[in-house]
Amino acid sequence: MKKWVFNFNEGNAEQKSLLGGKGANLAEMTNIGLPVPPGFIVSTEACLKYYQDNKELNSYIIEQIDNHLNELEIVTGKIFGDIENPLLVSIRSGAAVSMPGMMDTILNLGLNDETVEVLAVKANNASFAYDSYRRFIQMFSDVACGVAKHHYENLLDKFRKEFNISSDADFTLEQLKLITKEYKDIHKRFTGEDFPQEPKTQLYLAIQAVFDSWNNSRAITYRKIHNISHDMGTAVNVQAMVFGNMGYDCGTGVAFTRNPATGERKLYGEYLINAQGEDVVAGIRTPMDISRLANVMPKIYHEFDELAKKLEHHYQDMQDIEFTIEKGKLYILQTRAGKRTAEAAVRIATELVEENVVSPSEAIMRVEPSSLDQLLHPTFDTVAMANMQPLAQGLPASPGAATGKVYFNAEDAVKAAANNEPVILVRKETSPEDIEGMNIALGILTSRGGMTSHAAVVARGMGKCCVAGCEELWVNEEAKVITVNGIEIFEGDYISLDGSSGRVYQGIIKTAKPKFSEHFNKLMQYAEEIKSLGIRANADTAFDAQIALNFGVEGIGLCRTEHMFFKENRIPVVRQMILSSTKEQRQKALTKLLPMQKKDFKELFEVMESKPVTIRLLDPPLHEFLPSNEEDILNLAKEMDVSIKLLKDTISQLHEINPMLGHRGCRLAITYPEIAKMQTRAIIEAALEVKEEFSIDPMPEIMVPLIGTKRELAYMKEVIENEASEILSQRNTDIKYSIGTMIEIPRAALLANEIAEISEFFSFGTNDLTQMGFGYSRDDAGKFINDYLAKGILSDDPFQSIDQKGIGQLVDIGVKLGRQTKPNLKIGVCGEHAGDAKSVEFFQKVGLDYVSCSPYRVPIAKLAAAQAQVKNEN
Amino acid sequence: MKKWVFNFNEGNAEQKSLLGGKGANLAEMTNIGLPVPPGFIVSTEACLKYYQDNKELNSYIIEQIDNHLNELEIVTGKIFGDIENPLLVSIRSGAAVSMPGMMDTILNLGLNDETVEVLAVKANNASFAYDSYRRFIQMFSDVACGVAKHHYENLLDKFRKEFNISSDADFTLEQLKLITKEYKDIHKRFTGEDFPQEPKTQLYLAIQAVFDSWNNSRAITYRKIHNISHDMGTAVNVQAMVFGNMGYDCGTGVAFTRNPATGERKLYGEYLINAQGEDVVAGIRTPMDISRLANVMPKIYHEFDELAKKLEHHYQDMQDIEFTIEKGKLYILQTRAGKRTAEAAVRIATELVEENVVSPSEAIMRVEPSSLDQLLHPTFDTVAMANMQPLAQGLPASPGAATGKVYFNAEDAVKAAANNEPVILVRKETSPEDIEGMNIALGILTSRGGMTSHAAVVARGMGKCCVAGCEELWVNEEAKVITVNGIEIFEGDYISLDGSSGRVYQGIIKTAKPKFSEHFNKLMQYAEEIKSLGIRANADTAFDAQIALNFGVEGIGLCRTEHMFFKENRIPVVRQMILSSTKEQRQKALTKLLPMQKKDFKELFEVMESKPVTIRLLDPPLHEFLPSNEEDILNLAKEMDVSIKLLKDTISQLHEINPMLGHRGCRLAITYPEIAKMQTRAIIEAALEVKEEFSIDPMPEIMVPLIGTKRELAYMKEVIENEASEILSQRNTDIKYSIGTMIEIPRAALLANEIAEISEFFSFGTNDLTQMGFGYSRDDAGKFINDYLAKGILSDDPFQSIDQKGIGQLVDIGVKLGRQTKPNLKIGVCGEHAGDAKSVEFFQKVGLDYVSCSPYRVPIAKLAAAQAQVKNEN
Repeated sequence: MKKWVFNFNEGNAEQKSLLGGKGANLAEMTNIGLPVPPGFIVSTEACLKYYQDNKELNSYIIEQIDNHLNELEIVTGKIFGDIENPLLVSIRSGAAVSMPGMMDTILNLGLNDETVEVLAVKANNASFAYDSYRRFIQMFSDVACGVAKHHYENLLDKFRKEFNISSDADFTLEQLKLITKEYKDIHKRFTGEDFPQEPKTQLYLAIQAVFDSWNNSRAITYRKIHNISHDMGTAVNVQAMVFGNMGYDCGTGVAFTRNPATGERKLYGEYLINAQGEDVVAGIRTPMDISRLANVMPKIYHEFDELAKKLEHHYQDMQDIEFTIEKGKLYILQTRAGKRTAEAAVRIATELVEENVVSPSEAIMRVEPSSLDQLLHPTFDTVAMANMQPLAQGLPASPGAATGKVYFNAEDAVKAAANNEPVILVRKETSPEDIEGMNIALGILTSRGGMTSHAAVVARGMGKCCVAGCEELWVNEEAKVITVNGIEIFEGDYISLDGSSGRVYQGIIKTAKPKFSEHFNKLMQYAEEIKSLGIRANADTAFDAQIALNFGVEGIGLCRTEHMFFKENRIPVVRQMILSSTKEQRQKALTKLLPMQKKDFKELFEVMESKPVTIRLLDPPLHEFLPSNEEDILNLAKEMDVSIKLLKDTISQLHEINPMLGHRGCRLAITYPEIAKMQTRAIIEAALEVKEEFSIDPMPEIMVPLIGTKRELAYMKEVIENEASEILSQRNTDIKYSIGTMIEIPRAALLANEIAEISEFFSFGTNDLTQMGFGYSRDDAGKFINDYLAKGILSDDPFQSIDQKGIGQLVDIGVKLGRQTKPNLKIGVCGEHAGDAKSVEFFQKVGLDYVSCSPYRVPIAKLAAAQAQVKNEN
Repeated sequence: MKKWVFNFNEGNAEQKSLLGGKGANLAEMTNIGLPVPPGFIVSTEACLKYYQDNKELNSYIIEQIDNHLNELEIVTGKIFGDIENPLLVSIRSGAAVSMPGMMDTILNLGLNDETVEVLAVKANNASFAYDSYRRFIQMFSDVACGVAKHHYENLLDKFRKEFNISSDADFTLEQLKLITKEYKDIHKRFTGEDFPQEPKTQLYLAIQAVFDSWNNSRAITYRKIHNISHDMGTAVNVQAMVFGNMGYDCGTGVAFTRNPATGERKLYGEYLINAQGEDVVAGIRTPMDISRLANVMPKIYHEFDELAKKLEHHYQDMQDIEFTIEKGKLYILQTRAGKRTAEAAVRIATELVEENVVSPSEAIMRVEPSSLDQLLHPTFDTVAMANMQPLAQGLPASPGAATGKVYFNAEDAVKAAANNEPVILVRKETSPEDIEGMNIALGILTSRGGMTSHAAVVARGMGKCCVAGCEELWVNEEAKVITVNGIEIFEGDYISLDGSSGRVYQGIIKTAKPKFSEHFNKLMQYAEEIKSLGIRANADTAFDAQIALNFGVEGIGLCRTEHMFFKENRIPVVRQMILSSTKEQRQKALTKLLPMQKKDFKELFEVMESKPVTIRLLDPPLHEFLPSNEEDILNLAKEMDVSIKLLKDTISQLHEINPMLGHRGCRLAITYPEIAKMQTRAIIEAALEVKEEFSIDPMPEIMVPLIGTKRELAYMKEVIENEASEILSQRNTDIKYSIGTMIEIPRAALLANEIAEISEFFSFGTNDLTQMGFGYSRDDAGKFINDYLAKGILSDDPFQSIDQKGIGQLVDIGVKLGRQTKPNLKIGVCGEHAGDAKSVEFFQKVGLDYVSCSPYRVPIAKLAAAQAQVKNEN
């Protein structure tokens, strides 16, 4: 006869499609010898059969349920509906794929007007028993009989008011009995029938209700959205309830196999005697440290300690275990990988290697790459944080924590910093003019812009805490005040930013410095040995390059030359270049810029020695450089010897409606080739001089931004090559350099085969690819992206983690087409995604040679790359 | 023995790869019996052999050249280098694929110090003979011997100054002889050898020079850019020169087989006796009407007339023929399809059908679809245009011609129009606030924005002349003055716009009204019968829809609901909706908008009857609706009963950096579902009422804009369906409607298979697809796109004609993926490209069901669709 029902010891973790995810895991735990409360699983096949039979449980299934129930009664020594030792069970749905939003759990099934009294005696707590009973009635009536929850909630509310109750724990036994009675009346009123007292009837109805829930509209919608097949069915788990509150030989607790804060190898947890799980959490009674259990129940403690070790070995990771002791017997209710701080994760992972529990490849899988941010940046002191309520929530644009005084513009910020004040720079949004202010600030807060806005990108590059796009704030830069929920924060007031969570706090919060432990270094060493993907850094200065080198990068994947232009003393010259109305005027400005750029490149080459340095030619929208205040315009007009009117006219002519899709990148260089010429000259001359002065063989890779057509690259390549050969032939020397392109426009990805014909390397700019591929302006997406995340329309912010299906498809196409033309084409990525673990895994999968990220994200990228390698090999 | 050289009568039009394009055509003309001056072709294989032999003409090739030269001497009765009757030839390169920028033509090869004297006598014009000689020296020396042209040009300049010559025709014979002598000196100075006097030496050198030119750097670059193979080689055409200026039995002329202005079937052209080709064009002598030749040379005229008819039959099209009469013998130098006005093209095509020369399928191929614009809009009177110099050049944003007085804002424009003044509305760029002004203007001129800017799109929709993005103009809207090249144009001054060419003129130019001839209607009828692609129109009002119906559309492919919001009396309500800070405020505004929208839809359904009407839900960037001037803000604040400060804050909050990539389309509807609900209600209620009142079964297709993910559409679909079923179940009735989506975001095209699962139709928005796929803002691209076109980086403005390789690839992918999910998915396109012939052909090729364009572009789309069908069948 076909088997429809399975004991927990009849299955294992692999049988998810038959037993559902939850059932398969209960089976696994039972099989490895954990004292799991016994139970059985009604299979997904039984569910499908139920639907075939027009929603009826056929007699074979009922027979098997009855048989397993019998067995369960024998194993537990309890009997369904018994007035001495009644069996109570929990009912849980469990599909092969986890589907939150399907049926809720029903606990304490088996309770009725008689067994509730037995429970009251056994638990020595009649209120608990009746509270359990009224909850069971509500759950069962709602889930199994369709009586809407709110009827019960409304009644409860009425009683709360009537008895003037502040916490449900304050209901007296009499009051609970009254509620229970009225609950049963509600049930009868809406169903026309008495609340079922017969436990078996309760059980069959509950099982059917779980099966029915497979096709409720929430579940169907969920499956539609997540592309889950509708014909898999769900299993039902029936498990004996155990109680830790039936006397002093009972108890309950939670423990980690290692300290989740520090990683130290030692049981860490709490327990309570004669209590149920909720009591440990509720804080009414103070739980004991787990170590004390060794004295109170030495046998149980020893058993638990052994079990904890066994579990660590079986799951090869630190475990978080829930247990209950019922009448001197230990039950494990749940075990799972324990949550831990980054510090603990790193220590546990490396120590598990030393203990020969896991290999280095397994160890690196135990640490979430993004959690390393906690170790690389200051964090708020946990104690100081305990009672803080955030003032507002923005985007976690650049990790770390910072506390300081609010200043509203770069000038004020710089002055305050000069007086040794801790500065938080607050702006609506930042622009290149704010760079000096950002540089001296401890943290940056903006009310606008997304994860790749100017503030976010620059802050991450600086390794500085930043909360961006905090739209709740009303930042009035003129009046120098922030208004948020009626609170006003003025210049000089203290605020605190958590760049890792995006939260903003009022006042001072103590911060803790980052720690680089031996465990961290060990983990990085493992990652370095395992990974195959190259890791480069985005760095614009020798200073940043040095930080990146300390983290062990293989090169610079992106040097943004425009960032070099943002330095305060250069902006006027850059403005002259942009606002020139003649080629001569422009040439004059460029001549001034040449030695500055050359100096930067020389410093960069000197630090990076013979490692590759990818230098991107000028890219940003012109308007980013334009002066906006009267004084700057006045000074510039003087310096350029033009009228203010002419200058203002030129500025207004340069205004763009959608600068992100405007006159930038190579478009600029094609209109004004002299800019690219100057930059080429600066690169080549710098390389030559470094070679001469330091006997270093620098490896400049000149990168053309924003290519959409092959012809653009052909044009630019000619300009660059002509300028380079002019220099080289004049000096009668030679130098290695290569010319490649960004792939950041959708069209370029689609025609990468053509572009590869004349490109020596590709670097994907996934920021712009996301902007254009999705049609989301990074600066404006904040207005709807949170709503999209909340409504489940997006699973991730595509600027944080690459959208693999869509934008990732463009990357994949670009790689395939590029290599179709040049099988060995070197391809990297230099967008912000390179520092996101999920994205790094994707980049490895599609075959990139390297990823390039902010220096402070290098450890994350390295760990993610190693994890990707391990996953790839499995 | 292998054949390296071919007589013209030994080949035909098919042999382009062996004889080159030019050679194959000369062969074709010879074969059909045209009296083409005789000659021969040195084949492309000879060229390849030449390279194999290290750039030497081997003896076999030379032998064949000599043999064919001999034949040529016999056929012409002239002899190379003869002092009685010297043979002169032209040398032209000709590769299989036309490659402008390769070698120039060498004329009059065979001239030397002796034959020049013979030519002088025969032509009875010694100056002509010496001028020909000095040109030959320069061409030959440059092309065949590498002496740079500028050496000769400089010398000529020197003489021009010295002899105070204004036109080269003014050189005396003595002066020309002197120049010729000095030219030969230059040649000797740079080559070290005398200018070759031996015609055969000249010939061999010239042939080798043509072969060499195949690998000059210009040619190599050209081939690289155009993906032409480098190993095809070029052929060389050697053709006897004929002269029409050797006496009164000689002449030359040009004639069309039909009137190129009207299409009338009658020889149309001019000739001159004893003249060469240049004289007809130069205007020194006044040419005669071709009809007079019948009296002067009746035999020749008759011969020519027969020939003209034969050529029309052979090429099945009106021909433009160049002929020369040398000593009583008629030679055809060239024949090609004649250029013609649209009016003539239409008449010729339809009359060729009536004459049984071509089938309707062939006839429709004879008219360039875009030329129909000339017939659909006013044009400038050709006579009035004769001497006009344009003031500036902008983008030809919407065809037609207009003359009127300049006004700088909608208000002034409306007032002037009320006084019956002809108005040209001039703005930096237009916005929805200008709609009324645009509506009453005869033409619109903007200094900013591209082919799909607001001004361009709206003007085309109105069928109104518009020149956009005329960046040379400095438009000062406050001071009400245009400055251009030092000229100032004030309010009330007259200007004239040619929207078909993008030119702007100062003053009044007479315009001619459009004509819809019987020929036009006939042509449209042919197109209608031939085409398979559906044609719809973009129309937002019943008025536009009626125009489209008159042109024979099958439905509305795009009704932009936001255009309905732009009407003057609605803008305040729309603003209230947008600027509401509470849902209630917003609902209040929406309640006011509902009846207005419903009325529009009812009118539209009534006109369109049961034809499909695709209604796009609200799409544009919010800021387009925002009030910008103080007065409007003040009024709005009063109306909304909020403080001016709050209103200004809200406006400032809504500001976006890149609105095109911002909070628009379905993103807006997802944030504020009540907008979509109101629009759904307006559509459904309108459909119901029209059904009831007029017994019409309207077919609304509700289209969700700017979908990037399937989940967005799922969300929107639920909102729409819920609202619709609420209305339908309340009224207990039913109605047909469908829900589909725009595919206008690159990601949507890449994931069209997913989206198709829940979409009933697709409509490609190729404007946005181009903006995002290319990363070009339609409003800002004007700043670099002209430069790109000029530098050959782009071949076409991708907003005018779809970029088939890139953006087209996205369309192709979207169609394939969509139909993969739903094989019968209805797919159209509603971008501006639907009115561009090349694009329409592409859309047919990738399998779209229909294209939808502005009403005034329907005839163009229809003709283009018919042409695409014919090409498809061949």
